[in-house]
Amino acid sequence: MEKVREIVREGRRVAKEDPRRVVHSFKVGLVLALVSSFYYYQPLYDSFGVNAMWAVMTVVVVFEFSVGATLGKGLNRVAATLFAGGLGIGAHHLASMSGATGEPILLAIFVFVQAALSTFVRFFPRVKARYDYSLLIFILTFALISVSGFREEQVLMLTHKRISTVIIGGLSCVLISIFVCPVWAGQDLHSLLASNLEKLSFFLLGIYISLSSCFIISDLKCITFFLRLVCLSLAGFGDKYCEAVGNDDTKEVDKRKNDFDNYKSVLNSKSNEESLANFAKWEPGHGQFRFRHPWKQYLALGELIRQCAYRIHALNSYLNDDTKVSIDIKKKLREPLRRMSLESGKAMKEMSMSLKNMTKPSSCELHVQNARSACKSLTNLLNSGILKEVEPLELISLLTAISLLIDIINLTEKILESLHELASAAKFKNKIERPNLLPEKTSAKSIVSVRPIKCHDDDHVITIIEDDGNDDDTSKNDSRKMKEVSNHGET
Amino acid sequence: MEKVREIVREGRRVAKEDPRRVVHSFKVGLVLALVSSFYYYQPLYDSFGVNAMWAVMTVVVVFEFSVGATLGKGLNRVAATLFAGGLGIGAHHLASMSGATGEPILLAIFVFVQAALSTFVRFFPRVKARYDYSLLIFILTFALISVSGFREEQVLMLTHKRISTVIIGGLSCVLISIFVCPVWAGQDLHSLLASNLEKLSFFLLGIYISLSSCFIISDLKCITFFLRLVCLSLAGFGDKYCEAVGNDDTKEVDKRKNDFDNYKSVLNSKSNEESLANFAKWEPGHGQFRFRHPWKQYLALGELIRQCAYRIHALNSYLNDDTKVSIDIKKKLREPLRRMSLESGKAMKEMSMSLKNMTKPSSCELHVQNARSACKSLTNLLNSGILKEVEPLELISLLTAISLLIDIINLTEKILESLHELASAAKFKNKIERPNLLPEKTSAKSIVSVRPIKCHDDDHVITIIEDDGNDDDTSKNDSRKMKEVSNHGET
Repeated sequence: MEKVREIVREGRRVAKEDPRRVVHSFKVGLVLALVSSFYYYQPLYDSFGVNAMWAVMTVVVVFEFSVGATLGKGLNRVAATLFAGGLGIGAHHLASMSGATGEPILLAIFVFVQAALSTFVRFFPRVKARYDYSLLIFILTFALISVSGFREEQVLMLTHKRISTVIIGGLSCVLISIFVCPVWAGQDLHSLLASNLEKLSFFLLGIYISLSSCFIISDLKCITFFLRLVCLSLAGFGDKYCEAVGNDDTKEVDKRKNDFDNYKSVLNSKSNEESLANFAKWEPGHGQFRFRHPWKQYLALGELIRQCAYRIHALNSYLNDDTKVSIDIKKKLREPLRRMSLESGKAMKEMSMSLKNMTKPSSCELHVQNARSACKSLTNLLNSGILKEVEPLELISLLTAISLLIDIINLTEKILESLHELASAAKFKNKIERPNLLPEKTSAKSIVSVRPIKCHDDDHVITIIEDDGNDDDTSKNDSRKMKEVSNHGET
Repeated sequence: MEKVREIVREGRRVAKEDPRRVVHSFKVGLVLALVSSFYYYQPLYDSFGVNAMWAVMTVVVVFEFSVGATLGKGLNRVAATLFAGGLGIGAHHLASMSGATGEPILLAIFVFVQAALSTFVRFFPRVKARYDYSLLIFILTFALISVSGFREEQVLMLTHKRISTVIIGGLSCVLISIFVCPVWAGQDLHSLLASNLEKLSFFLLGIYISLSSCFIISDLKCITFFLRLVCLSLAGFGDKYCEAVGNDDTKEVDKRKNDFDNYKSVLNSKSNEESLANFAKWEPGHGQFRFRHPWKQYLALGELIRQCAYRIHALNSYLNDDTKVSIDIKKKLREPLRRMSLESGKAMKEMSMSLKNMTKPSSCELHVQNARSACKSLTNLLNSGILKEVEPLELISLLTAISLLIDIINLTEKILESLHELASAAKFKNKIERPNLLPEKTSAKSIVSVRPIKCHDDDHVITIIEDDGNDDDTSKNDSRKMKEVSNHGET
């Protein structure tokens, strides 16, 4: 009983994660029931006979989640069936000329050579990526036609029937997958990259908020999470994350904390991106995507985003360090570091938005320039000798974090370049100017207030008042106010 | 014509990369020709009829590269066919009780519900990993049996024939794949992890060699490559890489240079490891692997190795920096840094060897301890104030490299722990002591001599004499000698 309940729960989770899965399941059921009922009708049965089952088989095997995968498999199957059918008839004809004893031997040799050769070609990386299924069906059809031809004599008729039923099955899959709630692999790839960029911006803006506070409040670890909440409200994710802050439900809080580690999914996104791009190449033009949309450019962009995620992963391990650098120096470094993380985070966020909306990135350059100038003022600061009195050991994690951040800014610039290339190749539109406030700004007005939370060593009451999010300018003097009352030893 | 030649070249490359691919192709051809000839024999044809084609189909679809994948697919297919066959007969019986008009409607509903439900279950991550193919065949068989049953009446006979032919096809695949040159996914996973460890050790030993020299010779970039060659001869790769050093063939040199970036393949190995582990779970005991070998532990180990590769990737970008730290300080830091990279590299190499030979890692602890103590002496050195006069900006890349190296040593320790867990779970043997010299030491005697090479700014003649590789001890005073003649402005 418990097991059943668990399965139902898992089912709900899977459906919630992507509701299109439910729709897809219904679509498969529909097409299969439709094609099976073809089989019932006497006239159709009379013309195709048992061969009608090939239509059922084609539907089951070809109908994939996305239009691109379905089209790719369908076209592969039809082309391979046609080609192998022709060759199979030829092989059968050749074998039949060699007499009753020679025929089976010659056919076996044909099947052997064809299967071995095709199986080997399936190992070619370029073939494997796009035509693997084609070759599988080629081997299958050739063997079936040449062998069963040995029995039935009416090879031509068999081939004809097999091909027409495969086309019927394939066509119904393709039509349903395109016209009933289509799932476009291209759109998915596009959204994946935009969301990956967003995940990185999320992290960088989180650092910014931590930096804005860690020099004021001593217990960094305890409050980092709540300060990041503010960042979320800044970044437009506010409502979703703030609603349950009042809860003492630690499980819930833990779950949300994990959301900040979202960037980790970017680290292993390569194979997913590649298969989506392969599917997308099969898809016809849809929505804002033309038939020959520059999908290759998406892979290049994805690679750069992943490179940036590697740096963020390294940076993350240093942020969890307890840095022992004196507050004095921290205060001095704070301003440029904050600007660096804020501006790179904003640039990422903008790029994610511009990719999502398919508009040319406009203000990103400004953010990257700002980040660069913040880098410069940081290096000037470092050159001015403020680190002279710091113990070298204490410097290590600080300087490592700084150099990783500089790396991230360099990569942000590269990502922007790659996005520009994509924008011109895919003919993104120019951004339409909207009234003053960007949409994500409105949610920044939310006021977050937090109850006392138990920390591992001492307790804080933190009240964060987010006034209106007008710190979209270079934020030399941002207007966020923070009050913190430390009630040591109470509760 | 050019196209054909290119395909032949690609074919050669694919075959050379893994010769088992050629064997596999022959195996597929053989089984297929064998099963097809079943079809020719009158007695077999009489009992199975057209249904014999299911055997052919099963072979084409089920025969995969590794034993695990073939077994998994074969078992999935047979089980699903049995189960769906039973259900299909039940559905047919139920529908036939509802009269001539009700029957097709009821059958269509059954097919719809079954297909939609199974398709949805295929999205469950755990099901997708191991039983995806099972569900596909389940949908297919159920639809075919319940629908064709509507026509033929002899449903039981059909089901019986289909199941026996599927079993014949599946069994011949499994038998051939196990007994003729088997490719074990478990063995592949095992070797993959060992080679990943080796790639990392490769890189770390390369750093060691660079460090051994970059403080003597000014033009680091130009000689790094050749010095790494020495490292290779140390690490046992010597012969392969040294043979063509005398050539001026820059293409060849470039190609080899790329081999040093081998560690990059570790970054994206996750999906490969996961699918191999999934296949390996299906495999029976073979060689040194029991049936329930702890494959899960391999995934944990692989994850740690990947984490280490991320750090190495970050470190690599700093190594290409032109560091401007004064030679004086470099000289002071050189000894602990060299020891750190050497010892961690050796630990990796040892772990790779111990994994490869399935022996308990014995001397790794020593290497890790040595690396740790080198870390300590480095921190003492840093604390002694030698960096006081260095410009902070120049410190950044130096300290970042140091902290990443420390990170790598921490991860090496974690990898060792994980390897110990694996060794006890998989019952690795204790290491058998061999006569004094380890096998990789013998190739270290090779003498590498290099002709003048054109550099971007000036030219060097480098002669590296590798005497006997006895620097396996903690190498306070290693016996490598290097002569370097800088002929500025010549050549």
